[in-house]
Parts: sequence; C-alpha cells; structure tokens
Amino acid sequence: MSAFSNCIVEQEHSQIFKMGGSYVVQALLTDLYQITMAYAYWKCGKMNDDSVFDLFFRKNPFQGEFTIFAGLEECIRLLQGFRFSDSDIEYLKIVMPPTTDPEFFNYLKTVSAKDITLSAVPEGEVVFPKVPLITVTGPLAVVQLLETPLLNLVNYASLVATNAARFRLAAGPDIVLLEFGLRRAQGPDGGLSASRYCYLGGFDGTSNVLAGKLFGIPVKGTHAHAFVTSFINLQEVKIRTLMSAEGSREVDFVDLCLKYQAELSSIIDFLPDQVVEGELAAFICYALAFCTGFLALIDTYDVIRSGLPNFCTVAMALHELGYQAQGIRLDSGDLSYLSQLVKSKFVKIAAHYRLPWFEKLSIVASNDINEDTIHSLNHQGHTISCFGIGTHLVTCQKQPALGCIFKLVEVKKKARIKLSEDVDKVTIPGQKSVYRLYGANGTALVDLLQSSTEPVPQVGQRVLCQHPFQETKRAYVIPTAVRSLHVTWWKDGKVVQYLPTLGELREKAKQSLSSVRPDHKRTLNPTPYKVSVSSALYTFIHDLWLENAPIGELS
Amino acid sequence: MSAFSNCIVEQEHSQIFKMGGSYVVQALLTDLYQITMAYAYWKCGKMNDDSVFDLFFRKNPFQGEFTIFAGLEECIRLLQGFRFSDSDIEYLKIVMPPTTDPEFFNYLKTVSAKDITLSAVPEGEVVFPKVPLITVTGPLAVVQLLETPLLNLVNYASLVATNAARFRLAAGPDIVLLEFGLRRAQGPDGGLSASRYCYLGGFDGTSNVLAGKLFGIPVKGTHAHAFVTSFINLQEVKIRTLMSAEGSREVDFVDLCLKYQAELSSIIDFLPDQVVEGELAAFICYALAFCTGFLALIDTYDVIRSGLPNFCTVAMALHELGYQAQGIRLDSGDLSYLSQLVKSKFVKIAAHYRLPWFEKLSIVASNDINEDTIHSLNHQGHTISCFGIGTHLVTCQKQPALGCIFKLVEVKKKARIKLSEDVDKVTIPGQKSVYRLYGANGTALVDLLQSSTEPVPQVGQRVLCQHPFQETKRAYVIPTAVRSLHVTWWKDGKVVQYLPTLGELREKAKQSLSSVRPDHKRTLNPTPYKVSVSSALYTFIHDLWLENAPIGELS
Repeated sequence: MSAFSNCIVEQEHSQIFKMGGSYVVQALLTDLYQITMAYAYWKCGKMNDDSVFDLFFRKNPFQGEFTIFAGLEECIRLLQGFRFSDSDIEYLKIVMPPTTDPEFFNYLKTVSAKDITLSAVPEGEVVFPKVPLITVTGPLAVVQLLETPLLNLVNYASLVATNAARFRLAAGPDIVLLEFGLRRAQGPDGGLSASRYCYLGGFDGTSNVLAGKLFGIPVKGTHAHAFVTSFINLQEVKIRTLMSAEGSREVDFVDLCLKYQAELSSIIDFLPDQVVEGELAAFICYALAFCTGFLALIDTYDVIRSGLPNFCTVAMALHELGYQAQGIRLDSGDLSYLSQLVKSKFVKIAAHYRLPWFEKLSIVASNDINEDTIHSLNHQGHTISCFGIGTHLVTCQKQPALGCIFKLVEVKKKARIKLSEDVDKVTIPGQKSVYRLYGANGTALVDLLQSSTEPVPQVGQRVLCQHPFQETKRAYVIPTAVRSLHVTWWKDGKVVQYLPTLGELREKAKQSLSSVRPDHKRTLNPTPYKVSVSSALYTFIHDLWLENAPIGELS
Repeated sequence: MSAFSNCIVEQEHSQIFKMGGSYVVQALLTDLYQITMAYAYWKCGKMNDDSVFDLFFRKNPFQGEFTIFAGLEECIRLLQGFRFSDSDIEYLKIVMPPTTDPEFFNYLKTVSAKDITLSAVPEGEVVFPKVPLITVTGPLAVVQLLETPLLNLVNYASLVATNAARFRLAAGPDIVLLEFGLRRAQGPDGGLSASRYCYLGGFDGTSNVLAGKLFGIPVKGTHAHAFVTSFINLQEVKIRTLMSAEGSREVDFVDLCLKYQAELSSIIDFLPDQVVEGELAAFICYALAFCTGFLALIDTYDVIRSGLPNFCTVAMALHELGYQAQGIRLDSGDLSYLSQLVKSKFVKIAAHYRLPWFEKLSIVASNDINEDTIHSLNHQGHTISCFGIGTHLVTCQKQPALGCIFKLVEVKKKARIKLSEDVDKVTIPGQKSVYRLYGANGTALVDLLQSSTEPVPQVGQRVLCQHPFQETKRAYVIPTAVRSLHVTWWKDGKVVQYLPTLGELREKAKQSLSSVRPDHKRTLNPTPYKVSVSSALYTFIHDLWLENAPIGELS
C-alpha cells in the first residue's frame, strides 16, 4: 500500500475540488507516461519547445452523425489550479526510477498553466469528427501533461450530453425528461457529471440532490417501492386528518378516501376487496405529506387491480379538499399498454366528475428506458408525459466511451503528422483555423479547417472544400454566413472569456442543434456532416505525409 | 442556477472526502425521493420503525455466472460521515414544497448512522444473484436515505472488479495486466474508482498516478505517439553522452546507436535509410532519460520498417553500456502477427549476440483490447507479455451497469415482499442468514438463504436446498464445510471489524474465485451457480406471496 499517511491524503483532497460549482482536478490525476515524457523532454532540453496539440474525436458516438461538445469549463478550471503539490512531488520521487535527476522535481514544482493558451469551440456547440474541439499551445512538456485530464473531462461529458440530446430528439420537445442515473454511474462524481451534462444536453431535471445544489439543476422525485411495502394496513395511518386547502375544514382523510374508493369502484371498474390495503395506506400517508404535489408509484403490487384504483381514490379525496394531484409513475410492465389504460381511466373520471385536469395528470415512466424504447413507444402509441431515465442514459450503454484523442500537430513551428495504416487515424497537421459555413436559413453546411495563416473565407464567395484524405471528394460552397468556431478561453494565466452558466450552455446546445439539418440528426442512417479542409491545407497534409512515410518494398 | 454561493460549495466539498485513502460521500449525494420519503415517514410517525433492507442484484454481468463484490469499505466510510450539513438543509428547504413542516428540517439535522447496523459479505468475495450482499437494519427513514449512495458505491465497484477478474481469467495468471482507462472513465473519480477496483479484481497496475498515490497501486507507463512525433531529426539530441552502468566510460550515445543501426540492418533485415530519423531521435532521448527501463512505443510510423529497427538499435547500444532494455509497446495493427514478428526479431538478435534476455523483452499491447480480443489472440497465437487496457475495461462496454437494488424485506419485525409479474423480480422477504456450503477440495457448492432464526446448517449433515421460486428444483447437499457469509461491519456508530487493505482485498478476490468451479467461470455458456433457500424459507415466501397478491379475474 501507499507509503503516504492519511493526513497527507486528506489535505490533498481539499485541492481536487471546486470553484464556481465545478470540480478542480489535481495535476496528479494523469497517466504516468505524461510524467515520464515530461522527464525525457526535460532531460533533453525540449520541455519548453513551443507546441500545438489538438483534441478531437474520429467518429460520432451512438452510430449517429453529431456530438455535443461539453466539459470545457472543467478544462479551464483544471488550468486555473494546475500545479504539483509538495506531496505529489514526494510521491513521484518514489515512482520514478532512482536514476532520475533530482533537478527534475524542482522543475515539476514550477509547472503551471501560465504559458498555456487554450482555444476551443464553445461548450454546448454541435461538433463533428476531425474538428479540433480544443487546441492547446505552450511549452511541450506542460501541454503534454494536460493530455489525460483534458481527455477525462471532455470524453464523458460530451458523450453523455450527446446521449441526452438524442433522448430529447427521440422524445420530442414537450415530454419532460428526468435523469435518474446516480445509482448506476461510475461512483459519486460519475453521477454528478452525468446529472450536469444530461441537463446541458436537454434534460429537464435530475433526481440527484447534490447535483441540484452544486449546479442549480431542478431536482425531482417521489417515492420508491419500499415506501409502499413498508405499510401493511390502514391502522398504521396514525395522523388521519387533513385540513382543506383554503383552511376551512379538517377531515378524517382515511374515511374520505374510503368514501371515494366505494364511489370510484364502479366508475373505473375495480373491486375494493382486491386493492392492497398497505398500498392505500402508503398513498394516504404520502398525500398527507405532499398534499399539493401528490404523485404515486402504482406498480408495487398490481397496477390495474390495486395501484391505479388506490391512486384515483386518494387523488379524488384530495380534490374534495381543494388539492390537485400530480400524477402517477409506472416502473414496470408494458408501458404502451399501461399508460393508455391509465389515461383511459383518468378520462373516465374527468368525464364523470367534470374535472378536465384529471385527464391531464402526469404519467411518468421509468423502467429501463433507452433511446430505442422511446422510438418504439412512439410507434406503438403511449400517453407518457415524462420519462425518468437512469442506467442507459448515464452509462451510455449504446457506446460507453467517446474516443477523444489529443495529438501533437506542431512543434517549434514545424507541423507534425501521426501516420497510420488506417487513413482515418492520420492526423491533420499544423495549427489550424476552424470555420463553420452556413447556407440559407442559418443551416450549417460544412466545417472547414484551414492553416491558421490562410485568409478567412468570405460570405458570398466561392470556397473550395476538400475531403482531407480523398482527392476526388470536394465541393464548392458559397456561404451566407461564416463563423470562426474557435474562441480563446485561457491565456497568460487567466480566463479571458465569460464562462456561460449551465442554463446558458443548455440553451446553446439547443440552438446549435437546431442549426443542423434533420437528416444529420435522424436515428436511422443519418447523413454524415461534411468536415473539409482548404485546398492549401490538403496539399500541405499530403506533402508532409509523403515526406514522413517510409517507402514499402514488394517482396 | 443554484442560489448557493461558491464559498458554501467550497466548504462542503472538503467534506465529501476522505479517510484512509477513500472518498467519503455526502448525505446529499442521493435521489430526491429519498428525502421526500423521509418526510412522509416522519410526517406519519414511521421514521423510526425498525427496518431491514437487502442490497442485491438479480443477474450476473457480462453473460457470466459470477460477480466480485466490491465497494464495501466506501459504504462503511459513508456511514462514518453520514449527516446533513447546515447548507444541505438550507438547500432542501428550497427544494421541498412550501407546505413542508419546518420541524422536519430539525429532524434531518439529527440524522446519522448511529442506530444503523450494516452486515455484509466480505469485500472481494465472489457473489451470486439474489444473495443479500449487504443487509442494513435501523430506523426506516435513515436506512431508506442510504439507498442511493450505497447503490452508487457498490454497483460500479463490483461491476468493474468483475470485469477485471474476467480479463484476468482470459489472459491467464502470467500475463501482466495494466489498467489505462482514466481518459475514458466517467470523470475524475470514475477514473479513480476504475483503477482501485480493477486492481482488486486482479490487475497488476494502473497508469493513473493519483490512484497510485491514494491507494498504493503500482503505476506504470512509458510514452505516447506525441513524444515520437515531437522529434524531427538527430540534431535535436542536444545532450548526446551516456555514462556506462558501472560508471567507467562515457560515450556519444547517438554515434553508438548509429553503429548498431548499421550492424543490425543485416541481422534483422531493415534499410537504415527507411527508418524515420525523428523516431530514432525520440527513442535515443527516451533511453537517455530511462537508461535502466527503456520501453518504446514502436508503431508511430511503421512497426516493421522503422519502429522495431529503431528500438533494437537503441536497446543494443544500451546493452553495450551495461543497461538492459525493457521492451516495446504496440498500439495498433494485427497484434497477433506483429507480436510474433517482433518476437522473431528479438530471437534473432538474442541468438546473434548470445543475449538470452533479448528474446524475453516485454511485448506490451494496448489497442482497444477487450475480453474477446484476448480470447481471440490466445486462439490465433501471440507473444504478448502485457496488456494495457482502457476503454473496454473501465466502461465495461459489454454491460455498463450492474443492476444492484436495495429492497425493504422487513419492517417492525414483519417480513415484506415486493411482487412483480416477472418472478425474477419478486424479493425474498425477511431478515436472512446466508451460508456458503462447500464440497470436497473446498469447492463452493451452493449458497443457502435461511430465515435468521433457523439453525445453522451442519457439516456432514444433509441439507435440503430449494430454488426460491420453482418448487421442483431442489437438492440435498452434505457440506464438508459451511461458512456464514455475512459479517457485521458497522454497529452502534462505529466500525466493528478490521477493514482489509486493497492488497488484501485483491488476494481475497483471487482466493474466492479459486473456490468456484471452472464451469461457472468459463466465457461460453457458463453453468449457473445455485442460490437456494431452506425449505422453511421457501414456505414462508410463498405464504406471504399469496397473502399479498390480488386475485385476478378472467373476463
């Protein structure tokens, strides 16, 4: 086990955390090879070579053709606090080989992000493969040290935000989407990241209370099956009275419920001796605690014979006292059938008592929902007004990792290329500018990468956009608008841009998605969005490639 | 956004963390419905009802038939620090409806784990579906509040430990397994949890430096492609000299390498004018920094024409100075073919120079490895001595969530049952004892659940073990050893057992796995391990079921 005592660890942990509702990650949260590379750079005097690294991904997740970029604020917070503490250095002295020059550790003590410049696409923007999401420039060893934490902060954030956006596209704009994934996430802050970035991607709230407190996300929730099973009979309802909403009368609420139970049994067709008494007791107690927002989980025993009748019973008793119930939750069974059945009973009650709001009660569904379930429910028909989604949302079951990578593209002003047998893995060298060219109606047409020294493409002028690796794939574009996608966020040791709130990022994501053509966003066989290079950059890439590739020999 | 200022958040965060190298999770890291249920319990005077909850899962992950239980120490740390801070309470006042009785918040301030008893299977043990991994007893409202954080802490920990154990079974005992997943985990502590529990499950080390510092896990790593591409030519090697190991001679290391390059070109058959000069410069600089442990990533440009020749060149030059290189890493391409090709060149050099260690150099592979890849490589043949595994290990791609649940099984000494249309979802009611019955050679035969009042099964005596839900599935077992699986870990406000170190837990997992029959552990169609109930518990379950189930009506 570690040679480090608890007290050191305790001090350290207070540094991992926090400014402005975000985590701050320690410099030591990195792969060891970043430290060994830093040593090798330092040893050969290259640690301060000017370098440029691009962070990007090669393939959109979930067989889709778009990605929401997220995690940028956390990256900037990382830079703010980036340093090795004394105890980190002590630990590294143990980990590094004994031949390591002791002077290196003094160098590590001086490492910070003061000479780093970070430019990036704004957080919440829709992004595409090969486009540098983040470009970091600065001393080679320091930029390299940033690789692992930057990837850690962007990969999951962008993946889960994209997943959330896909659920939103599947569900449509009017259905309430709640994230319920804390128990299935990768530990405590896996859960916090999930809540934060699902909200960014278009969810309406979370069950995660700490996420609500830290990030201001609306928190939602009612009760579990255990609440229902903890009640056995109506004798357990000790405090039975409820005051009416306007404060004029106090009644025995249990008796009132029993009156409605008898009345409703013929209206919505159930047998009072078949409902589970413990469940009715649980609903009554829940309603006594939440008379203004009664929402009950109705599938603990039997939705049709017990849960739904018990809910309607309590909801009508509340109504008599001037309170409006909120709705029900289904956590098992055939959600298409059950939601429609529930709705039909609500409609009957609404008609019988002339209470139009009764047929508009919430129907929340929360049983192992994924994107495909929503599409399938849409197809079969359902009356669900809210989905509570956990496992498949936060674990991104369909593809649990986004493959962002961080590649050196320039060192000492010389462009660098990483070759591969697989053309898709060849990097686009050099420091680049990134433009998004728009067509009529503000629709995004193409993203264009250029060498940073090339002139900005002009509105109304023809621009040749080439596939970076396939010579014959190219097109002329006449943009009606041109936007430079990269913004500088960090320079000279400080944040140089306003960092939007989470609510603003959520709005940004929504807007950005709306500028993308529907066929890029559809589930089945979406059209790939084009990411191109200028013809100057095309030539540059291919010259450098030839220069660096060993020539094969046929034998 | 949250109404809470940064300073409050900052103070709070220092409480999330830490004793003994573990995180301590705040009480507020929970689902809102735990709070609303606590309020309803409090409101109806049930908050202190004696309750018993079981934490268990219904299905082993990864189409397998075993699971490694992990996360227990973190659960116990949760209990140690379990309380709502003043700012938590202030936040909850905003979140709860305005009708909430203010006295409830005073009650919340008094909540702690002092009246909680937690018993559980020891961490690291192999476990099976339906067996309570953790049983928590205590006041209903408080136990309920623990649900979400306990699930959060156990689900991912057990899932990833099980995944790691499966990779270990696939790779065999002699191959070194390293966890490289930090950049693909769910944020910073998703990465820390992954490192911790992969080690528990049988990995040998991690790339995650902070995990090394906090948990004492061996950390490993070399360099990335960027290190190689950052060098252009040999002129960049500014400090060219290297002292021999025994300190007697200092040479121009670049010249020495060039001498070996010429010599080796005919021995292992390459063209010196085809190797990439920048790569050779990178390897030389890396060797100058790590002369005692030189391991090079050889696939940046071309393994056969450049990477491998450059590695061998530098390794032989090191050898002349008395240093032994460590090996190579492959991060792309056909790992079966390439590893065997690399080995064949190593063998040639070993034979030519009579250096037996040269053919035993490490061959590390790290390209998108999953369990199936390892099985397939075993089948095809390979010479890999170490796998570095990231994405598929930490995201548990094959099944990214373990479905642990937390169910009420008894309240006020009355057993409770949760019914479901799906028999597999019916809970096993009441407080139970859990025994593992062993056969000859210490092999685990069956896990047996009994009501806690039944006598302990005796060695050498016939025990009737029944399937909990299928009457005809039953068997007699005569155990040669009987072990009570549950141990009390927390009682009367304190830890009442020695908490093993991570190294001890890793050993425990290894031992526990070795007591499980191979056919339960195999990848293809493994045999399910039997989890049974005593015949008394069987009868009890079914009586309670009938008592609670509404009777249907055919129409």
